[in-house]
Amino acid sequence: MALSAANKEIVEKAIKAIHERVFYAQYPEHPKAYGEDAPGIGLAAFNNQLGKPFKGLLQQNPVAWEGEEVSPYTMKPLGITYPVFEVDTLVVRAGRAFDAWRKVSVDDRAEILVEALEKVKYRFFEIAHATQHSTGQSFIMSFQASGPHASDRALESLAAGYEELNRFPSKVEWEKPMGKTSVKLSKEFKAIPKGVGLVIGCSTFPIWNSVPGIFASLITGNSVIVKPHPKSVYPIAIVVEEIQKVLQAKGLDINICQLASDSSNNLITKKLAENPVVKIIDYTGGSAFGDYVEHIPGKTTFTEKAGVNSVILDSVADLKAVVQNLSFAASLYSGQMCTAPQNFFIPAGGVKQGDTVIPYEEVKKAFVDAVAGIANHPQMGPGTLGAIQSELTLKRVASVKDLDANVLLAPGKVANAEFPDARTSSPVILEVDAKDTGVFENELFGPIILLIKTKDTNQSVSLAKEMVAKHGAITCAAYTTNEETADYIVHEMESVFAPVSLNLTGNIWVNQHAGFSDFHVTGGNPAGNASFTNPEYVSKRFVWVGHRRSN
Amino acid sequence: MALSAANKEIVEKAIKAIHERVFYAQYPEHPKAYGEDAPGIGLAAFNNQLGKPFKGLLQQNPVAWEGEEVSPYTMKPLGITYPVFEVDTLVVRAGRAFDAWRKVSVDDRAEILVEALEKVKYRFFEIAHATQHSTGQSFIMSFQASGPHASDRALESLAAGYEELNRFPSKVEWEKPMGKTSVKLSKEFKAIPKGVGLVIGCSTFPIWNSVPGIFASLITGNSVIVKPHPKSVYPIAIVVEEIQKVLQAKGLDINICQLASDSSNNLITKKLAENPVVKIIDYTGGSAFGDYVEHIPGKTTFTEKAGVNSVILDSVADLKAVVQNLSFAASLYSGQMCTAPQNFFIPAGGVKQGDTVIPYEEVKKAFVDAVAGIANHPQMGPGTLGAIQSELTLKRVASVKDLDANVLLAPGKVANAEFPDARTSSPVILEVDAKDTGVFENELFGPIILLIKTKDTNQSVSLAKEMVAKHGAITCAAYTTNEETADYIVHEMESVFAPVSLNLTGNIWVNQHAGFSDFHVTGGNPAGNASFTNPEYVSKRFVWVGHRRSN
Repeated sequence: MALSAANKEIVEKAIKAIHERVFYAQYPEHPKAYGEDAPGIGLAAFNNQLGKPFKGLLQQNPVAWEGEEVSPYTMKPLGITYPVFEVDTLVVRAGRAFDAWRKVSVDDRAEILVEALEKVKYRFFEIAHATQHSTGQSFIMSFQASGPHASDRALESLAAGYEELNRFPSKVEWEKPMGKTSVKLSKEFKAIPKGVGLVIGCSTFPIWNSVPGIFASLITGNSVIVKPHPKSVYPIAIVVEEIQKVLQAKGLDINICQLASDSSNNLITKKLAENPVVKIIDYTGGSAFGDYVEHIPGKTTFTEKAGVNSVILDSVADLKAVVQNLSFAASLYSGQMCTAPQNFFIPAGGVKQGDTVIPYEEVKKAFVDAVAGIANHPQMGPGTLGAIQSELTLKRVASVKDLDANVLLAPGKVANAEFPDARTSSPVILEVDAKDTGVFENELFGPIILLIKTKDTNQSVSLAKEMVAKHGAITCAAYTTNEETADYIVHEMESVFAPVSLNLTGNIWVNQHAGFSDFHVTGGNPAGNASFTNPEYVSKRFVWVGHRRSN
Repeated sequence: MALSAANKEIVEKAIKAIHERVFYAQYPEHPKAYGEDAPGIGLAAFNNQLGKPFKGLLQQNPVAWEGEEVSPYTMKPLGITYPVFEVDTLVVRAGRAFDAWRKVSVDDRAEILVEALEKVKYRFFEIAHATQHSTGQSFIMSFQASGPHASDRALESLAAGYEELNRFPSKVEWEKPMGKTSVKLSKEFKAIPKGVGLVIGCSTFPIWNSVPGIFASLITGNSVIVKPHPKSVYPIAIVVEEIQKVLQAKGLDINICQLASDSSNNLITKKLAENPVVKIIDYTGGSAFGDYVEHIPGKTTFTEKAGVNSVILDSVADLKAVVQNLSFAASLYSGQMCTAPQNFFIPAGGVKQGDTVIPYEEVKKAFVDAVAGIANHPQMGPGTLGAIQSELTLKRVASVKDLDANVLLAPGKVANAEFPDARTSSPVILEVDAKDTGVFENELFGPIILLIKTKDTNQSVSLAKEMVAKHGAITCAAYTTNEETADYIVHEMESVFAPVSLNLTGNIWVNQHAGFSDFHVTGGNPAGNASFTNPEYVSKRFVWVGHRRSN
């Protein structure tokens, strides 16, 4: 084995992109880039898989076959079952596989992982259908988020790992002058992997949020157990299958990357996470479980938990463009993105536009109308909002009427001509006062938007900052035409380690973090302790050990 | 201000050295390199300081002046007092200083810190006397460890920080092609410092173990509170003084780096460590307190705790050379180094030398004789063993007779013609069996050496590995002429993240870790969670935050 010239070029271009942080994509986001036949082949594969056991994985001797995915679009079970294994089996296999994988050279690991990504590419359309019918994302979002965007993020962490592993020379002749003589030592520097990694997936982004951890742990020599959310297994099962197939083709233990499917009535996550063989845990999901993961003794953890993302409205060049941008950002996938804006801080005195001031009530109305406009639009509605992944989210939407808040827009069904039975909810918009922190200090996951009337922008910034410090945030959108105010917002938000997106309008939204350029989550506030992909994201998965030898 | 060409060159050469890991020293270790006058000036400064308040620090309005250092050589108090401050004062000043320091550019921070190191250089001889008469190290060891070696380590972490902070561009124009149009964003990437750093020093290496954390926190924009051990304040006070003087000369708040001297009857370490303003803690010292530090919620910690370092004797080219090397390594500074070998694993069947086998009893005798030879030598004895820093260490030595072990060499006074009253102890050597883990599984800090009779080398390796996994280790020395055995030892020890020094003889000892080349502590086992200086050592002190702006 060796790292082929073509694959080495892919890795090197990715490393360059990470350093430059200009636009870069190894996998184009447009479906047309993948050929005329690809959509049909992907759809056929998806249809053929429905109602059957998922046979692609190479893991041997499951104790059962289980599956419980239900399409949020058809509300029918997908009927796919996955192999189930005892925790002990998974852990023993992972430990044995680790002993093999750690000895594989960094170049060979890179070869295998790039090859796997190149194979996954041919399954982007099947992945898109699988993602749509487990997460409720629209088809195009499913395609992009689980396909090219996820593979770019996987490549990003693979490349970051490759760079860090090659940061120091593997062998050095060290010679210390001592007057007329010298002391000579042969030194060897090794990046020793920590052990078995566990990647705990979420139901809404089963691939995008899992592959960075999978590829980061694998490139650094750790074996990986992938524990998907039992309601979103199919998409990531395809990725694990492709990794296993490349491992097999190279004569390696396929258990270097295992899928650990479980079921809602027999969840195995805690058993895996607490097992002493597991040294690294990647986690995406709610804060309570994330806090538990972070505090298991003896683990290196990478978490992305919940946050309360803010929008600060101070002044605008064109309110219409701003409202258009924000209403779309808040509606996209019905607010089921960790990056979705939730709390909109608007000064009671209104928002400046050029020399005039648009009154608070007018800003509010413009935003409510724009959100309602999207939800009620026959094509844009379902295309933007998608479907609701979980019953729990629907219940949360229903329960907001019990909150002490003024309902500006009540939730309702989103008409979907293609999938009339889809589980949907148009966004609910609530209005509260700045003093009602009890209402807006929690992440209200799903299509729930809060307009918060503040005394002025200073109070908006102060509240937004407090939310980040206490509850975390992954994004902050701010609109101001005043340079000083912009600097102030940036300074305050970065002091709690939240990135600011200033004055976004047009075809770019605060929810989107681009691979190779935007850090996703900073790791510096309660929204999570890791970042896709800063150097620590890979370097914490191994330990530098230097040996010395007299000649 | 700006980073001068000369200082930039110092930083760039250091970064290059870190990457290449060949021999490099910015500060020569030979005292003669610092000029003919330097020794006299340093001694005069030291003598002039004795019995007086330490007035060099620029911190204002202390509530008291206190000091309790006693020379382990003369057994007389140094009589130096240091300014004492309320914890609240230290913390408020550090917080305010942080707000100023974080805004200073990375280049300007580097300029200030390199300049401070260049000033410290002129005080190496005073530092050497100060170190000798607080730690009990010999003069030459005091000079090297607290002078050039420490400054090289400080420069190493400064340079590593400088490199990481410049890893990504501060500004980027990002343009994403979207068919006929494109989306443009101006992006800004900032390394945001975490807050106030606390550096907790130890009594035996007051500068060497503290400056990496001080310089790493400062270069990354954090203000620092330096909390020395109350028995070893003088050496690090000089370093803090020089940093403060450069800060003042540049018009900056001198509280960016404060000394927080306390006294044994009113220790303030926990109050400082638990204060919410303190975000980063660097700690060197015992494991119990280190474990406490690591578990304070909400802190980023860098610890160097205790470990049980092993020597594995399998086979040798020349036993005499090996015994000479090991007896010196075990005697140096009376075993008061975190890197000192403690547990010597020797196979009951003896040690192979070429075609012959040297019986266990003979190996044992050779080693005991060599250690006794050093201790009893009128010059080499005091020059190698130095003095004992703490009464507690003497008590520990006295108490070993209660252990269930065979005393091969009893402790005694080390004659010191220059300092007849010095607190000394020649090494005690105990012999135990492989099954007596209760005796050898603890760090017995000080001049206590254990010979452990094992069944064979496999058992030696297995026990050494078990010690690292359970109790940590910073070094492991191994002697074998068999390549397979060498590979086996390296594999086993690196699996618990302990570095191996193979077959060291001559003028190089397992205790010595060279700046810019050897990682000191791996961070991967219970001996500590940090490493001088891997990339994480600096990157964990700040958070990458990326802002975006529509044009």
